[in-house]
Amino acid sequence: MTLKPKIVALCGGVGGAKLALGLSRILPPEHLTIIVNTGDDFTHLGLHVSPDIDTVVYTLAGLSNQEQGWGLEGETWHFMQSLERIGGETWFRLGDADLAMHVERTRRLAAGETLTAITQDLAARLGIGPVILPMSDASVRTILHTDEGILPFQDYFVRRRTEPSVERIEIAGAAEAAPAPAVQAALDDPALGLVIICPSNPWLSVLPILETGDMRARLAALRCPVVAVTPVIAGAAVKGPTARLMAQLGLEVSAVSVARFYAGLADGFLLDEQDRDLAREIVALGMAVATAPTLMTDLESRVALARAALEFAWGLDS
Amino acid sequence: MTLKPKIVALCGGVGGAKLALGLSRILPPEHLTIIVNTGDDFTHLGLHVSPDIDTVVYTLAGLSNQEQGWGLEGETWHFMQSLERIGGETWFRLGDADLAMHVERTRRLAAGETLTAITQDLAARLGIGPVILPMSDASVRTILHTDEGILPFQDYFVRRRTEPSVERIEIAGAAEAAPAPAVQAALDDPALGLVIICPSNPWLSVLPILETGDMRARLAALRCPVVAVTPVIAGAAVKGPTARLMAQLGLEVSAVSVARFYAGLADGFLLDEQDRDLAREIVALGMAVATAPTLMTDLESRVALARAALEFAWGLDS
Repeated sequence: MTLKPKIVALCGGVGGAKLALGLSRILPPEHLTIIVNTGDDFTHLGLHVSPDIDTVVYTLAGLSNQEQGWGLEGETWHFMQSLERIGGETWFRLGDADLAMHVERTRRLAAGETLTAITQDLAARLGIGPVILPMSDASVRTILHTDEGILPFQDYFVRRRTEPSVERIEIAGAAEAAPAPAVQAALDDPALGLVIICPSNPWLSVLPILETGDMRARLAALRCPVVAVTPVIAGAAVKGPTARLMAQLGLEVSAVSVARFYAGLADGFLLDEQDRDLAREIVALGMAVATAPTLMTDLESRVALARAALEFAWGLDS
Repeated sequence: MTLKPKIVALCGGVGGAKLALGLSRILPPEHLTIIVNTGDDFTHLGLHVSPDIDTVVYTLAGLSNQEQGWGLEGETWHFMQSLERIGGETWFRLGDADLAMHVERTRRLAAGETLTAITQDLAARLGIGPVILPMSDASVRTILHTDEGILPFQDYFVRRRTEPSVERIEIAGAAEAAPAPAVQAALDDPALGLVIICPSNPWLSVLPILETGDMRARLAALRCPVVAVTPVIAGAAVKGPTARLMAQLGLEVSAVSVARFYAGLADGFLLDEQDRDLAREIVALGMAVATAPTLMTDLESRVALARAALEFAWGLDS
């Protein structure tokens, strides 16, 4: 068992948030830092929307809608109905309660606070123990080059429902952006014992984190293990768009493709138990492999996967 | 009966909106232009809020909450509850459906549209026939000098519930602001036959309109009658704060004080029938006087007062 107790999780939206929740249930809050993708952030209706941060925040606050996987439980839509009546844009749906987050975040950003400071404060007000950090305080934006032209992330993902075929993914602004100071501090912390890459979409959710400033070099230079958890199970992505995107990018829809994406970065790869016959191929990429049930259907399975990831990492470290 | 069919109404919030509604029910829509006070406008939570415009718009669209006198019928408050949970400012309550108006207006202002263009478009989308105009596209702000210091209008009116004693009213930016071009055009229209000053608070709702640029001179130069409708009945204001404010300003709470405020500007003063013994005193101020039931408790009384105001004005003009 590692003597270095601190754990950093790299996380996108829904899938990543599930594992982050599992981790939050078994780790002391001061030991867990969750670094969240902000490549999906965008300005909508004049409001700064940070979809992945909100998904993680709502999930850890116990406020998220379990069924639809995003947004708030018991959400209402009177704002959207009213907006539609006066001719506003309605393709990206903002719920009445959810809206408070965007309005308050936008107001505080305009007042000069950093996204980091705002995120930490809002999370604390919602009673969340672990630290949740945006990957950067600078603007980094995921842009899809598709057969319908260049689309900002939400235009591709929500407005066009991932239908355009993706030819190339661009993380605009990433090279010039620095990881948020608190992100740098978490990775520099001598007590850091493990980095877990949550089962988020590698290309859409994790890539923006890796591309931000010197993040990839920082992760590569770590002396603690980096473990990635697969978002692909038995040749299918847990969420639809990932599989379609992989096919468009010319990748086999297989955990091996994910492992290849993380090769050179991750020391360990946590594979679904259904995919154990792929282990040899992944080991050949230079990673240790363990298997576990990785489908997280309820809190119990989230906690179990978090535990499996930690046990796997402890083994790597010893 | 006048041969010049067009009518301009000067209007603040609730009381004025009631008469504007009455007028809208008996005039062809293309004959009625409602010029609305924007001295109460403010930026709240980063959003541009125009309380009087919204009151008029909601009232004429048939969407207003009849009971409370402001806001939307059937409004819900999930945004505010959520905002409170994350530590946002909650002293000014924005309903879920109402919020769409502020978000969309703010977005369109930021995109460079004028408040006039936005207001006309939103009103049209809500099916409103008459033209509703902000008094100015420039920033004019009502500021109260009180025993608690200088307070922006909403701080005085909503946050401090009109409790501070008002020593002086300042209409900041009014001298430098031009009336909106459409306001100027409405007053310059050769078909203009009557200006009605609605029974809004003269000092808080009408004064900002009068002080905006050369509005007072424009109104004084009109060749058609100007008729003011009293907001004070039998020594009491229809809405509480007006009476308190009048007392603080050292004014008798009487329709005569209102008439004195409009002396030199209005040609006619429509007094409540309960106050007919004040008529002689008001006539002495240089105004024609008529009496009518001026308390508007339902649509019927709104239409009746609108009709009384028109009949009074027609008499003045003939």
